[in-house]
Amino acid sequence: MALVNENYLKLPGSYLFSEIARRINQFKATNPEADIIRLGIGDVTRPLPPAVIEAMHKGVEEMGKAETFRGYGPEQGYEFLIEKIIEHDFTPRGVELSVDEVFISDGAKSDTANFQELFGVNNIMAVTDPVYPVYVDSNVMAGRTGMYDSDKGQYGKIVYLPCTEANGMKPSLPKTRVDMIYLCFPNNPTGMTLSKDELKQWVNYARENRSILLFDAAYEGYIREEGVPHSIFEIEGAREVAVEFRSFSKTAGFTGTRCAYTIVPKDVKVYDSKGEAYSLNQLWLRRQTTKFNGVSYPVQVAAAAVFSEEGQRQIKETINYYMENARIIREGLQAAGYTVFGGINAPYIWMKTPNTMGSWEFFDKLMTNAHVIGTPGAGFGANGEGYFRLTAFGTRENTLQAIERIKTRM
Amino acid sequence: MALVNENYLKLPGSYLFSEIARRINQFKATNPEADIIRLGIGDVTRPLPPAVIEAMHKGVEEMGKAETFRGYGPEQGYEFLIEKIIEHDFTPRGVELSVDEVFISDGAKSDTANFQELFGVNNIMAVTDPVYPVYVDSNVMAGRTGMYDSDKGQYGKIVYLPCTEANGMKPSLPKTRVDMIYLCFPNNPTGMTLSKDELKQWVNYARENRSILLFDAAYEGYIREEGVPHSIFEIEGAREVAVEFRSFSKTAGFTGTRCAYTIVPKDVKVYDSKGEAYSLNQLWLRRQTTKFNGVSYPVQVAAAAVFSEEGQRQIKETINYYMENARIIREGLQAAGYTVFGGINAPYIWMKTPNTMGSWEFFDKLMTNAHVIGTPGAGFGANGEGYFRLTAFGTRENTLQAIERIKTRM
Repeated sequence: MALVNENYLKLPGSYLFSEIARRINQFKATNPEADIIRLGIGDVTRPLPPAVIEAMHKGVEEMGKAETFRGYGPEQGYEFLIEKIIEHDFTPRGVELSVDEVFISDGAKSDTANFQELFGVNNIMAVTDPVYPVYVDSNVMAGRTGMYDSDKGQYGKIVYLPCTEANGMKPSLPKTRVDMIYLCFPNNPTGMTLSKDELKQWVNYARENRSILLFDAAYEGYIREEGVPHSIFEIEGAREVAVEFRSFSKTAGFTGTRCAYTIVPKDVKVYDSKGEAYSLNQLWLRRQTTKFNGVSYPVQVAAAAVFSEEGQRQIKETINYYMENARIIREGLQAAGYTVFGGINAPYIWMKTPNTMGSWEFFDKLMTNAHVIGTPGAGFGANGEGYFRLTAFGTRENTLQAIERIKTRM
Repeated sequence: MALVNENYLKLPGSYLFSEIARRINQFKATNPEADIIRLGIGDVTRPLPPAVIEAMHKGVEEMGKAETFRGYGPEQGYEFLIEKIIEHDFTPRGVELSVDEVFISDGAKSDTANFQELFGVNNIMAVTDPVYPVYVDSNVMAGRTGMYDSDKGQYGKIVYLPCTEANGMKPSLPKTRVDMIYLCFPNNPTGMTLSKDELKQWVNYARENRSILLFDAAYEGYIREEGVPHSIFEIEGAREVAVEFRSFSKTAGFTGTRCAYTIVPKDVKVYDSKGEAYSLNQLWLRRQTTKFNGVSYPVQVAAAAVFSEEGQRQIKETINYYMENARIIREGLQAAGYTVFGGINAPYIWMKTPNTMGSWEFFDKLMTNAHVIGTPGAGFGANGEGYFRLTAFGTRENTLQAIERIKTRM
């Protein structure tokens, strides 16, 4: 008899975005005329840049001719793309990487979800709270989290690092030992960043405890302020203890095109029960060559064009567009008397609900009164309760109108 | 201290295709003039069909305009593609499927490797021997196989189903209970198929034992003979016990373009330790929505074009081209006195090495004398020893020349 992986049964039934969709559909059924503006899910709306489109056409063309056709590529990605990534994203920041430390994939969601496979099931993991749900759910499925406590909205074995108004949305070091630490900065959902000194504390902690930092930098392209680190590897010693996830999704509009990359330095080690060290880089290579078959060739050609002169200029225009939306939301909400976080170095604005209103209650009120959709903070963890996330990925017109409605109808 | 997943340490060091690459490089270093013909790795060489190229260009074009741009798609794939798959691949064979039973993915390698996650770690798995290594290695990583016995070349907890000359490369039902059964027909590496009656035995076994059949049909497009089933779901009762993996890789030349699909009927159940039943379809949906973010939109548009009238005509031309290669290899080897299997309903020819020569010894001899590369059968399992795989995916010219060399130089 085929037995189920019982860890899957620990997951609570309804996924955040399905519940949101359910409520929207219900509202639309009774209010078919409502002009709903969605600033909820973190999906981009601007088209791919012309330089990327042109390159992708070229890649497609090559696939149609016997002389230039490409079959299986390297599972870890083509060097023409890896070299551009290193040259543009890392070398200028003083980070040295070799080509076999960069792994191209179909998405940071896949990579952040799959990477935990390399670790023993008894490792203790830490996440910020609120947190991007994929880190938690993928570890639940692997059996690393203990049972779900539905009163607390937390799993028994996970160490949660609260990010609250009191600590300025910056997690403190854990009080008990942890082995795997997920950090995402610029943060989804709070939109906040950490300084070099703050990140340095985490690198030091990981070095002292031989823990691993799983650093999600999917939003680094949105950093506007000088001095905010774009990569964990800008911190001394991080090469020994950190892995970094990056993506073209938000930076270059690839949410529907699918390309990302993960940096696994050869210095990072994990240990067996006898204390013998193993290279995380070699383990990830083995995982990817066994369970993945590489990213579509035309997509990799398209991604490489992001680093051309026109590509860089074009993605910066798009990011400026979104960040102007972020400014409009942030300043609009502040003018309306709300307390807000983020929106300066990230496309997310994390707002406090008024009068300690519950996240879902605020969701319903915003939908009903203003016909604006956002994401209830409670969906990101227990400490997200009482908060609400808006994203800067809408059109300018919708963003302006949403803020106008929040000011006048709430 | 971050502990490694010790299951990874059970994997023997060298992967089949890396070892082949190593030997080729060594040979080339001392024989730089040798004109090597590769009929080893199962990668296609013909370009994508014009109908597919045209559609993919169209998909790329849409991504460049705000009005038609697509961000995140459904993780399980777009309905426009799923509907075409059902209409062309299943309905004509009397197999009824609903759209939420088909999951689009980036590859059958990913799906066959990831699907085991849904099962308890104590399930007993069966594989044919020889076998596509991904089924085994992905389960090793998950801790389901026991330790590797390097003398036997087998894992302690896996039930191996020998496919040998004596049984015509057709596996017998296991003698001890198994819960998960990987079957691949047309088979990689043997190129053999099973009849409806033979498949029916497996469906019956699975129904009687509440086991799951993990059926890999990646090569169904190469079936030429009438009456050979293309899908496990042509067998009565299979909807209750089987999952089927399919791919555009070999059928339409997508090895470098990346698109595949997996059928998970809503009738298939797995059980918890109390005997309560769970829907495998719902579990896979949860897995994919949590750990995967869908296939690139232009790639899905390209895949849908495979089912257009021109697309179908064009992929059939390419398959005919490869299957003429298969005939040349098969008949050429037979004329030269070799015993061969496959090559009639599959792009693989499985040959017996002469005089019980070892697989790797034959590999070296073929490379040294004929400058032809194939794949040692031993790389596919203990019962592959003494066999050798050639593929029909080369060019016509190379295929003819390889057979000529085998006839005259071996």
